[in-house]
Amino acid sequence: MTQASIGAVQPVFLDFDEPLPLASGQTINHYTLAVETYGTLNADASNAVLICHALNASHHVAGIYDDTQEEGWWDNMVGPGKPLDTNKFFVIGINNLGSCFGSTGPASINPTTGKPWGASFPVVTVEDWVNAQARVADYYGIKRFAAVMGGSLGGMQALSWAIQWPERVAHCIVIASTPGLSAQNIAFNEVARRAIITDPDFFQGNYYEHNTVPQRGLSVARMIGHITYLSDDDMAEKFGRDRRNKAEDGRYQYGYDVEFEVESYLRYQGEKFSKYFDANTYLLITRALDYFDPARQYGAGDLSKALEKVKAKFLAVSFTTDWRFPPERSRELVEALLKNKHQVTYAEINAPHGHDAFLLDDPTYHRVVKAYFDRIAEQGGLV
Amino acid sequence: MTQASIGAVQPVFLDFDEPLPLASGQTINHYTLAVETYGTLNADASNAVLICHALNASHHVAGIYDDTQEEGWWDNMVGPGKPLDTNKFFVIGINNLGSCFGSTGPASINPTTGKPWGASFPVVTVEDWVNAQARVADYYGIKRFAAVMGGSLGGMQALSWAIQWPERVAHCIVIASTPGLSAQNIAFNEVARRAIITDPDFFQGNYYEHNTVPQRGLSVARMIGHITYLSDDDMAEKFGRDRRNKAEDGRYQYGYDVEFEVESYLRYQGEKFSKYFDANTYLLITRALDYFDPARQYGAGDLSKALEKVKAKFLAVSFTTDWRFPPERSRELVEALLKNKHQVTYAEINAPHGHDAFLLDDPTYHRVVKAYFDRIAEQGGLV
Repeated sequence: MTQASIGAVQPVFLDFDEPLPLASGQTINHYTLAVETYGTLNADASNAVLICHALNASHHVAGIYDDTQEEGWWDNMVGPGKPLDTNKFFVIGINNLGSCFGSTGPASINPTTGKPWGASFPVVTVEDWVNAQARVADYYGIKRFAAVMGGSLGGMQALSWAIQWPERVAHCIVIASTPGLSAQNIAFNEVARRAIITDPDFFQGNYYEHNTVPQRGLSVARMIGHITYLSDDDMAEKFGRDRRNKAEDGRYQYGYDVEFEVESYLRYQGEKFSKYFDANTYLLITRALDYFDPARQYGAGDLSKALEKVKAKFLAVSFTTDWRFPPERSRELVEALLKNKHQVTYAEINAPHGHDAFLLDDPTYHRVVKAYFDRIAEQGGLV
Repeated sequence: MTQASIGAVQPVFLDFDEPLPLASGQTINHYTLAVETYGTLNADASNAVLICHALNASHHVAGIYDDTQEEGWWDNMVGPGKPLDTNKFFVIGINNLGSCFGSTGPASINPTTGKPWGASFPVVTVEDWVNAQARVADYYGIKRFAAVMGGSLGGMQALSWAIQWPERVAHCIVIASTPGLSAQNIAFNEVARRAIITDPDFFQGNYYEHNTVPQRGLSVARMIGHITYLSDDDMAEKFGRDRRNKAEDGRYQYGYDVEFEVESYLRYQGEKFSKYFDANTYLLITRALDYFDPARQYGAGDLSKALEKVKAKFLAVSFTTDWRFPPERSRELVEALLKNKHQVTYAEINAPHGHDAFLLDDPTYHRVVKAYFDRIAEQGGLV
């Protein structure tokens, strides 16, 4: 079967009025989640797949928006005939609570005060997101997902689903992820946050009232992030020491303006990001990354204990050149699953593109995911 | 022979009035270099070793300052009975032009204007530093160094010495270095520079006149640097996910203050650095790192061509967990030397401490350097 695009899609905005208790002890009383769905939910709601997003992505997983022509961030993965085939599965994308693409977050108006939440928006965790997502499942009448799937931070949510709601996840697909950030991972997040928080335009998180955004800090934060998403080799291949503004005689400019292609690329990425992403959301999401540690929270430091009650079958995928969440970290998860005799398929993909590989359409990677979903469909009679 | 400390040392400040032409085409007419020496220069000036420093170090290589009790940055390497034995060798440390520890730099007063140089201080290169260092050699009557040695950016200077002044270097010791930054290396430098330059207190480099310093940006820059100096494993070993301000019940604080030890460490390092280091010097030195590329400048892209006229014998040392300048980069240098049939000794040290390993006293590493210097001493009759 040939692959096709889903075509034009639209989000829906679901309002929830039942208070959501958070890990921090705080509660959010009312919130909106932006949601997109693709494909058709079958009669017994057994063909639903939840896609969880990473730092800067959203509910817009696949298809295209008519007005902006913006394509979903995982459009190569989700669609008719694609690895996650929307002819068979009903796929849901949800913008996480605290994000800035239509779901309630720090930039939203707090109904109690009539002003943006800003710094008063509570810190939310991966576990909180999963609980909010479970209410979206309830809304659609989905008792149990055929699969919950995500890459990077999205993979943490998938894993946490399997731990928090063992009866509600048949398959858990964890890609380019980790059961907990390393010291180096936290360190990069912390530097990014310092860049934002120390920007004078941050105003302790209440920059909305000052009609400004901490664009400088957010731009630096994004530049740091970008370096960690690409492999050293990939950067060497893409940019090397290529020059951007090269004089005819090859001389350097001897200054601090853009001299090398890689500088130009990073500045562009930083500036673009700082114009559409909310700085408070950046803090919130990086903190959710830092805090995710099921071994601590569910197993007193032992990941295999945290996974004892899991019922889902697992697919874990890692990429050889991913130095942000390297294969070792996926193998830790696989080991802890095996220790519990859980069923797990593990693929380590030889790919040059670092952490970003999970978003690209490496043929081996896509074949692995496609084969996995095809088996789910066959076993579930979803044809 | 037992090792001993050099004891109390003092810098001297040498003034140079002969204009120094720079790679940029600009010229510095008058400049001061802060210099320290250890040991005694022999009658035919054949026992001199030049130590070149890296980003944040200085001429204060060894010994201790009486007033501040500050120990030299390579005191474990240089001293009586140490790998570089000051009983046999006369050792020189020079604070590079453009730095901020006594040599002329952006924070110095420009005699022409009576104001700090600031942004008008010229961009200098590794090659410019080497030419300035050559004048210090002239001052001491040293025609040819027994060795020029450095780690990291200091190793680049040692390499450049062998290329620029082939007759003046008997041995070249290049530690934890590279013949040119990778795209990823440049990327990290660029993010650090953006953090400084976009700090509103930077004032286009003329912050001295505004009685301020871009402390926020410089602190973020240093934090980024620090992550790249340590290995992932070393950070995991030192900090892991250890908590700093842990509640009795183990709960997180659910906020953006210091939560993990690694955050505390990085903030401390950033703040400390931003109080003593000059932001313009940080820009200048990172740019010198970016620009260093002898293959481009001397060999039209072929490193072995750039090394054709080199006469020095080489010792190259790399460290297995150094992901800033990994062993591959040292091997590139070794290959290019061998292609020219130059004599080179290469040691790849199995050490857990990442790039910073070159400053630590790993026994194997120090034995390699000691054996190398002992041979130089024997062959030169420096007993």
